[in-house]
Amino acid sequence: MRAPSDPIDLHRHGAALRARRPAPLGPASAGPVAIVGAGPGDPELLTVKALRRLEAADVIVHDRLVSGEVLAFARPGAERIYVGKAAGAHAKTQEQINALLLGHARAGRRVVRLKGGDPFVFGRGGEEAEHLRAHGLEVEVVPGITAAAGCAAAAGIPLTHRDHAHAVTLVTGHGTAPEAEPDWAGLARPGQTLVIYMGVATAARTAERLIAHGLAPETPAAVVEKGTTEEQRVLATRLDGLAATVAEAGVRAPAVLVIGAVAAYAEAADRLAEPAVPACAAAL
Amino acid sequence: MRAPSDPIDLHRHGAALRARRPAPLGPASAGPVAIVGAGPGDPELLTVKALRRLEAADVIVHDRLVSGEVLAFARPGAERIYVGKAAGAHAKTQEQINALLLGHARAGRRVVRLKGGDPFVFGRGGEEAEHLRAHGLEVEVVPGITAAAGCAAAAGIPLTHRDHAHAVTLVTGHGTAPEAEPDWAGLARPGQTLVIYMGVATAARTAERLIAHGLAPETPAAVVEKGTTEEQRVLATRLDGLAATVAEAGVRAPAVLVIGAVAAYAEAADRLAEPAVPACAAAL
Repeated sequence: MRAPSDPIDLHRHGAALRARRPAPLGPASAGPVAIVGAGPGDPELLTVKALRRLEAADVIVHDRLVSGEVLAFARPGAERIYVGKAAGAHAKTQEQINALLLGHARAGRRVVRLKGGDPFVFGRGGEEAEHLRAHGLEVEVVPGITAAAGCAAAAGIPLTHRDHAHAVTLVTGHGTAPEAEPDWAGLARPGQTLVIYMGVATAARTAERLIAHGLAPETPAAVVEKGTTEEQRVLATRLDGLAATVAEAGVRAPAVLVIGAVAAYAEAADRLAEPAVPACAAAL
Repeated sequence: MRAPSDPIDLHRHGAALRARRPAPLGPASAGPVAIVGAGPGDPELLTVKALRRLEAADVIVHDRLVSGEVLAFARPGAERIYVGKAAGAHAKTQEQINALLLGHARAGRRVVRLKGGDPFVFGRGGEEAEHLRAHGLEVEVVPGITAAAGCAAAAGIPLTHRDHAHAVTLVTGHGTAPEAEPDWAGLARPGQTLVIYMGVATAARTAERLIAHGLAPETPAAVVEKGTTEEQRVLATRLDGLAATVAEAGVRAPAVLVIGAVAAYAEAADRLAEPAVPACAAAL
């Protein structure tokens, strides 16, 4: 979806924005901390507002799932602080992140908390906003394209469709682990689209539970790995083949699973382009 | 959330993009039709990619829920075709829209099909993409900030929260009408956030059915009217007060209803600014 020239164009665009810094943020957006969604990976899927906040920031506190291309929009003097969470190996605890944001904001710096996807969809943006507000700070939340929307668009999967899906439910694979049983009967109901974030490791159990609760084994399913990046892969399968597909293709995080009739629209034309995007440039 | 100066800045930004037209779209994005999400209303919530497609378009086919501020990014010579749907009064049928897109694309024009929110979330983008592809055209889908994400960010409502909501479900109020009964038991399950699009007219029935299926009457609920625009109103209530709140405040479409524990975070500071944005500049 992206032309090779786009990153260069975007940098020019960034320079154009820098030329008119500092922009007046206005009274309504003058909060010292902006919690900003970085979108699913493709830097062109940043919103204009996110780009502007990023360019104005003194300090950018970011996760693992924020691409180097997105971080490149920061102004040269901005401090970038990585607080990413790899599974099981947290670089910083949530408490440490909260303290960090608070410290920089109180020191009078323009702080951007940059999160992959949308800050309010499995991003813990709510907890961070709550913490900052409880300490008297103003917080602005800038939404981002969440992985479900970004990956669906890139893979040709409409999340809703008058003939097939009247609802879309977003859940995480963590939530489908045995120790945190979701309402499988609710998730297995037909006529909706299910998008599972962080669901690679638990794909086999998810498929098994959904089938056990009545979802047809032949229900279309798709896997979108590194969606919207140059390394995107789209794998089309069925619910009863999901686990095997994930295993055989060696799917790795970040990826979303899409389950429901609409997954049949997946463009299974895997795009295995050269890794023009660094490994960290990945979608949530 | 928006400073008064922003529209001007955006126009400058638009001019900067125009200066380097025509941009190479590259082989992967060379489809003659781009189905583009315009986001929830605030023009700064357009993605960079959407802005670029809009600026490159010869023909823009748009809905009612696309603001004049967004349309202003089109180049001066571009043709704008309104195909909006007001409830019960379709300006054009879906068949007419499909034929229109096809005709302009086959005539060699760069066509942007611009839709409020995200084209694949209650936007019929899937049907239009299907139709165009069936007729041999390449289609690119550019995701947009869907109303749920835009309104949640603007109203301070995290859609998911480790303590309160492990899933988020998007549905329409149309789907909750008596003739198209949804799975109320599924929607009424606790621990999730429910976002109802186009749900103003059916708010009373929605609340009644959810309570009848076991959702607690005191479940927090919020209404976000014209979310992310200058006319945004946020109303915080409870599920059993939802219908009365909607009626007493005279809530009108476009609006989303948010039901679930996280709705308690709603910033009920109604922002009734001067109508700086024209009435059509409304969020899906």
